Amino acid sequence: MTHYKLILIGFGNVGRALARLLLQKMDELERAGITFSVVGIATGSHGNALAPQGLDLLEVLTRFESGATLDGLSEGAAPPDARALIRRSEADVVFENTPVNYATGQPAIDHLQLALDLGMHAITANKGPVVHAYDSLHRNAGERGRKFLFESAVMDGAPVFSLFREALPAAELRAFRGILNSTTNLVLSRMESGESFDEAVKFAQSVGIAETDPSGDVDGWDAAIKVAALSTVLMGVPVRPDDVDRRGIRDITPEDIDRALEQGKRWKLVCKAQRTKAGVEAGVAPEMVPPESPLFGVDGTTSIVQFETDVLGRLTLIEEDPGPHTTAYGLLADFLNAIK
Amino acid sequence: MTHYKLILIGFGNVGRALARLLLQKMDELERAGITFSVVGIATGSHGNALAPQGLDLLEVLTRFESGATLDGLSEGAAPPDARALIRRSEADVVFENTPVNYATGQPAIDHLQLALDLGMHAITANKGPVVHAYDSLHRNAGERGRKFLFESAVMDGAPVFSLFREALPAAELRAFRGILNSTTNLVLSRMESGESFDEAVKFAQSVGIAETDPSGDVDGWDAAIKVAALSTVLMGVPVRPDDVDRRGIRDITPEDIDRALEQGKRWKLVCKAQRTKAGVEAGVAPEMVPPESPLFGVDGTTSIVQFETDVLGRLTLIEEDPGPHTTAYGLLADFLNAIK
Repeated sequence: MTHYKLILIGFGNVGRALARLLLQKMDELERAGITFSVVGIATGSHGNALAPQGLDLLEVLTRFESGATLDGLSEGAAPPDARALIRRSEADVVFENTPVNYATGQPAIDHLQLALDLGMHAITANKGPVVHAYDSLHRNAGERGRKFLFESAVMDGAPVFSLFREALPAAELRAFRGILNSTTNLVLSRMESGESFDEAVKFAQSVGIAETDPSGDVDGWDAAIKVAALSTVLMGVPVRPDDVDRRGIRDITPEDIDRALEQGKRWKLVCKAQRTKAGVEAGVAPEMVPPESPLFGVDGTTSIVQFETDVLGRLTLIEEDPGPHTTAYGLLADFLNAIK
Repeated sequence: MTHYKLILIGFGNVGRALARLLLQKMDELERAGITFSVVGIATGSHGNALAPQGLDLLEVLTRFESGATLDGLSEGAAPPDARALIRRSEADVVFENTPVNYATGQPAIDHLQLALDLGMHAITANKGPVVHAYDSLHRNAGERGRKFLFESAVMDGAPVFSLFREALPAAELRAFRGILNSTTNLVLSRMESGESFDEAVKFAQSVGIAETDPSGDVDGWDAAIKVAALSTVLMGVPVRPDDVDRRGIRDITPEDIDRALEQGKRWKLVCKAQRTKAGVEAGVAPEMVPPESPLFGVDGTTSIVQFETDVLGRLTLIEEDPGPHTTAYGLLADFLNAIK
């Protein structure tokens, strides 16, 4: 039986879903010889708690639901911020899920770096640290015999990074192609039923898929970041979001939509990358997809990626019904892969 | 640098594809700290060779292409049969790919058991040992700190077993559904273009997809064996091919085909299994699949499986363009996973 001390930095939808999943899987993990305690939680606006003997996750979740803070749950004084919590925690594993600045990857990168410096496994669902600091975090982890893992950064908890890392040894990824942004996918579907671009965006916002400022999605930035993350990690070639030839869906008109439907096709915001002699050619752009393609039927929040390798025929992965609980599973899987 | 002695028992299309892949990946593996020599090869009708210093794979392949036997390649007397070769080889890893009796799983089971008894990792692309002896081979391997692996037994080299074993820790498989037999898939497609069942089967035989006696495919046995293998290993519930509720495609008439097309649907031989309170309910049967399903577009030799787990939304895996080279990759992946 091995015991692990965990800390949760960031306790939004994803952090709380992870707490619930940890509770759900506790007995099963114990039967597999793994026990854990969550010794610290840093939140955005509900305070922080540090308790070396372990926090009662059920109580923490209940407090959150009732709007209460974590005050009084700490043994001794509560740490003033996430960095202090990481430093004082003596944890084995940090789960970093704070709101991230996509232009810099901060403060996630600092949190993860600090955790690795202190000898912890560093796990995140944030894309920012992968596209802005993969090399240094990965190298730092390697030098300390720890892991920097981020399965949930692309396609939520679906096994994309671990597929290649764990299940496809000695396979060289030559190209990939897919649909990785759900807001644009939903907007394009709504436009097919006759809505204007603005109406479709408003709908996506009303159901909580699109953000108040939808430009990160509709201009292809979110997709470009995911393409950069996949290229960097799976192809071993550093690609920045700025390096991705990026075109969003803002210019797609109702006439474009009609033209596609007349040809039996559908517009999709397609992510792609291809290995070249010089490195990787990566792009995000709207494409008219024919019905023969598995991309054609991908609706709503479903995502898809098709991999071309040197050893297999085309391998396609489709993930349906993502949500905070599937992102949380990716974090749990990273934890279990880190310690195995 | 760690050196591994390998033996290849069975040297048909798959064994030879593995030999070519080993040659292709030799330098790459050496850069990863892994060297190997193939010290023994047992063939069906070209004799056997055992050479503790390692066989020249290129020479072996060339001999095969010219129709020559392996006579004279052994150091000392050639072993009279596969069992003697395994016994005398002092190998670290056996790749078992002999023709298998699907009713018994022999002689593959005996070969794998003997290899494990001698302390080797036991790897096969044969389904027979998985459905007839998974428990004993898996337990035997575990007791000796060795691995019994068989990635290529279902969906060729696509990572199905390793997906759950390596990339989806603590995920419980609740159900799956897919198309896993290419002969029936091809026959049904041809019938959609107006051919009779017999004509479609003849075509499948002419392109080398269907066997001379097509009953193993068209009556659903091959699919049932695959369902049994997936259920047994991924759900942890022993399921024999006989336990699978099996209906083939022999009774599908041109009228049935027309009826489906009129409704915008297609007949597919669907494999499925679902966890129940009592165990697993498994079946193989033709179904009319609507265009919304990813199964609808699966043509020819492409295969697909959709997994339902307790932690993710539906996860779908599609493999296109399989062949001996992709089966060989599954064997290589098993080797690398066994020694990691």
